Amino acid sequence: MFALDPAFAATSEPLVSLELCEARLQNDVRFPWIVLIPRIPGAVEVEDLDAAQRARLLEEVVATGRAVRAIGAAVGRPVTKLNVGQRGNVTRQLHVHVVGRRNDDPCWPGPVWGQGVAKRYAPETLALARDAALRALTKD
Amino acid sequence: MFALDPAFAATSEPLVSLELCEARLQNDVRFPWIVLIPRIPGAVEVEDLDAAQRARLLEEVVATGRAVRAIGAAVGRPVTKLNVGQRGNVTRQLHVHVVGRRNDDPCWPGPVWGQGVAKRYAPETLALARDAALRALTKD
Repeated sequence: MFALDPAFAATSEPLVSLELCEARLQNDVRFPWIVLIPRIPGAVEVEDLDAAQRARLLEEVVATGRAVRAIGAAVGRPVTKLNVGQRGNVTRQLHVHVVGRRNDDPCWPGPVWGQGVAKRYAPETLALARDAALRALTKD
Repeated sequence: MFALDPAFAATSEPLVSLELCEARLQNDVRFPWIVLIPRIPGAVEVEDLDAAQRARLLEEVVATGRAVRAIGAAVGRPVTKLNVGQRGNVTRQLHVHVVGRRNDDPCWPGPVWGQGVAKRYAPETLALARDAALRALTKD
């Protein structure tokens, strides 16, 4: 049975259950950032999904890219580049990061992972980001 | 018409043309590392591929994961975790990194991108890595 690794609760907020993945908003106002966790028990690597699940995963990555752009627009910092990453070196449960980048963000052009300290959203900005992401993710 | 960004030639060696992507071996003995560049003119983001190309991309990522494991085995440093990343903040042409990690590698558990300085292969080790990767990538 699938159970979300508790590590995700410390850093992110639930957004929506997609067909394959749990989509969660990373609570870090530095970047519009959504994490996708496929609900496949025991999956650690992309190869642990079957071909149909893998194709679905990439479709959800693309939809999540739209959601990340929507967050950037909603908070007045439009995204100019998407970054997608799957590591799992610390939290092994398979998950994919979709991050919206700008050339004036604090980590540009380097990766965001393990850089600096997350800055949590103020409640009203979090609501704005959540709403924008949900509208984008539930559109189709 | 597709033309490989010249930036790739500075850091990687050609391996093989897969159905969708050019596969290139990153010339950095610190990590077994292959870069996939879809031969789609103008593509920058995953969303610039159509659904069939996206599904194919992820299949080539999985095959490349096997090749990265094969390199690790060939050079006597078996891979224990795969990392997959698509950024393109500097070199915009769409490309996906597939990197083999170990908990004793110089960047563990952080990402490899932009960390430290690449250490080029000795010619004989490069040949070993190339051969192992090619065998894995041309098996199916």
